[in-house]
Amino acid sequence: MSEQRVLRPTPISGFPEWSPQVRSVEQRWLDHIRAGFERYGFASIETPAVESLDVLLAKGETSQEVYTLHRLQEEAGDSSDARLGLHFDLTVPFARYVAQHFNELVFPFKRYQIQRVWRGERPQEGRFREFTQCDIDVINADQVPLHFDAELPRIVHEVLAGLDLPAWTLNINNRKVLQGCYEGIGIEDPLAVIRAVDKLHKIGAAGVREILTTQVGLSEEQVGLCLELAGIRGEDASVIDAVTKLGVRSELLSEGLEELGYVLDSLADLPKGSVVADLSIARGLDYYTGTVYEATFDDDPAYGSICAGGRYEDLAGQFIRRSLPGVGISIGLTRIFAKLAAEERLPEGRICPTDVLVALPSAERRDEALRVGAQLRERGFNTEVYHQGAKIGKQLQYASRKGIPFVWFPPFEEGKPHEVKDLTTGEQTEADPAVWSR
Amino acid sequence: MSEQRVLRPTPISGFPEWSPQVRSVEQRWLDHIRAGFERYGFASIETPAVESLDVLLAKGETSQEVYTLHRLQEEAGDSSDARLGLHFDLTVPFARYVAQHFNELVFPFKRYQIQRVWRGERPQEGRFREFTQCDIDVINADQVPLHFDAELPRIVHEVLAGLDLPAWTLNINNRKVLQGCYEGIGIEDPLAVIRAVDKLHKIGAAGVREILTTQVGLSEEQVGLCLELAGIRGEDASVIDAVTKLGVRSELLSEGLEELGYVLDSLADLPKGSVVADLSIARGLDYYTGTVYEATFDDDPAYGSICAGGRYEDLAGQFIRRSLPGVGISIGLTRIFAKLAAEERLPEGRICPTDVLVALPSAERRDEALRVGAQLRERGFNTEVYHQGAKIGKQLQYASRKGIPFVWFPPFEEGKPHEVKDLTTGEQTEADPAVWSR
Repeated sequence: MSEQRVLRPTPISGFPEWSPQVRSVEQRWLDHIRAGFERYGFASIETPAVESLDVLLAKGETSQEVYTLHRLQEEAGDSSDARLGLHFDLTVPFARYVAQHFNELVFPFKRYQIQRVWRGERPQEGRFREFTQCDIDVINADQVPLHFDAELPRIVHEVLAGLDLPAWTLNINNRKVLQGCYEGIGIEDPLAVIRAVDKLHKIGAAGVREILTTQVGLSEEQVGLCLELAGIRGEDASVIDAVTKLGVRSELLSEGLEELGYVLDSLADLPKGSVVADLSIARGLDYYTGTVYEATFDDDPAYGSICAGGRYEDLAGQFIRRSLPGVGISIGLTRIFAKLAAEERLPEGRICPTDVLVALPSAERRDEALRVGAQLRERGFNTEVYHQGAKIGKQLQYASRKGIPFVWFPPFEEGKPHEVKDLTTGEQTEADPAVWSR
Repeated sequence: MSEQRVLRPTPISGFPEWSPQVRSVEQRWLDHIRAGFERYGFASIETPAVESLDVLLAKGETSQEVYTLHRLQEEAGDSSDARLGLHFDLTVPFARYVAQHFNELVFPFKRYQIQRVWRGERPQEGRFREFTQCDIDVINADQVPLHFDAELPRIVHEVLAGLDLPAWTLNINNRKVLQGCYEGIGIEDPLAVIRAVDKLHKIGAAGVREILTTQVGLSEEQVGLCLELAGIRGEDASVIDAVTKLGVRSELLSEGLEELGYVLDSLADLPKGSVVADLSIARGLDYYTGTVYEATFDDDPAYGSICAGGRYEDLAGQFIRRSLPGVGISIGLTRIFAKLAAEERLPEGRICPTDVLVALPSAERRDEALRVGAQLRERGFNTEVYHQGAKIGKQLQYASRKGIPFVWFPPFEEGKPHEVKDLTTGEQTEADPAVWSR
């Protein structure tokens, strides 16, 4: 053995890494999500991991979480890479992409994007520094039909329903309802209230009341109404009625209620409890202007949102003199997946994709084994040929440890039949590589 | 329109980004490569984009190309992220992965890994700062059977043969042949010669001669033999004969020739010219110890290697007190793909994955259109429902611009038949959504 210093590698906190078994499940999930998005006609794009800092910080909100890049041996005064950072979500890069490629795209532009993102946050349960998000967004010139506000939750519901997750709920609200209501009772800074109400599930009603009173400077009556509004929740038109009964009047509020009603109505055929209007959902980001989405696990809402999104008016407008509103939703794949992995709730994955191991009793018979291997691959079976002549017991053990379901034995002599052993049942039978099926 | 300053985004040099059409081709390639790797039983893993700098620099060779990460708002004295860098290849992270998870893996461990890597290089033709590599490697405890040195080129050949590339050749050599030959004629620093010979295709024989004479200090005779060796090229045992005829004797040389002969012999059934032994191939990296691979386009070898790899003895040994040799090969996907994209040699991709657009003649008939859409999706067709009531001409134009092959018309009245228009032929026929097929 080498005498050199050994550098024992340790996991880097916040950067998840999976065993081959777990990775095989993640890959199945990714394929499933992608197929679900394509089923609705969304096209794949990918953007570089890197954006210029100008683009990343155009909205200025998450600056402390951005990882910037530097070349290790940067010459003094060379700042060619100094203005690059890793993207922290897929919405900002998408808005930039649409603005940059505006003339080549067909609108409404419907894209999905499944990529890793990076945030320099302190790692904690459910929060990673590198994680995969699965986003679908629609961006259009001038206006995005409300059709999409209803279609996106349906797609997410269909996709996640196929992954056998613990019970979860997609909560929906509409920023216009909140903002309209707040304006209707004379609140001057509705965004400050939205940011406070967004903390309701973390700090409770008393905490929100405190902020609204002392920091935002609302009257007791205003605070009361804000909290009353935030308490409204339901799956159908009863929600609209409950808001209307608050007696607040504003054009924006009416518009928001109409939109919310349309979305709820469009999704009424989904299983009960899938989609719920929850007037406490605000989403912290300033750029949402209409429908907002946020999904959580029913038995662990404090774990954080597993899907989130909403409608925005001018994200791409930062990069081009066109009105390019959009609506989008993001599945927090890593957050969901890591929780299930940690709780051992994932289905068992495969250690390797091999269907058949062709045994190699001795090195001299390698050509024959390779021929059978090629024939089985040709017929669609993932096939390994054992890598050296060895005792059959050792080869069977290798197959068994790797979870390979079948071991193939080429004939010992010319004219004798091939045999295949099913490691699940232990049964060994004659088989013809030209027609065998599992 | 917004009055705010507009930040016109521009492409960042060295970070490629594709249109949806081109991305759809890239995705097909990625699926094809993955299936090809799995066909031989290789399992997928992914590693974080980030490694500790200790790991990245353990071999110390590419330090100037590494991007390090810093948090934008790093507090003074906080260096928690200061020791992280983006991986510059997938071999070093794989070696670290195997060492770290040694006790959980089944050996020989055969994995594929398709991920982006980053290098802080000056971008130029064929060189990117962010690019995707597709790697297969086998690592085993103590020894890796030569079987794999022959299997890896076969897999790469099969995979790339399915991508309709311009003619290319996989060149093979064996470091033991070079090193054994150099040692056999009394050269003290064979690695210095290997590094010089590796530049042959860039600087020519005169340039290599100059380095070997003035920098490495070889005699004229030694230089002559090194260049004679580098000139040997062929597909079969003639190569072994030609080396033997040089009259150099060393145990390492014999071992290397035997290995090279085995690999060539094992691949003799591949189409003529696919795999060629080329004794000038050295690969610059110090860690290769046996077989080395390098593929280039026949009509543009100067473009750089499109696949590369080889056998290494102690990459994982840096991280664990075990002998863990390996052999691997990497397909430079982005390098290949970007060249074909730039030369417009890629097959035409789809703008979106949609098979059928369900027309929506008026908003009132939305439910009906949604029902047909759901039914077609259920039956496996990627289906969009047009997003608002609009003139049929406009909807047909949308389908045509997005390359959607079929437009579906729900019946105008109860009891009337559905119709579907094939946009390729222009033909419109009656159709039943429960049984229709394209």
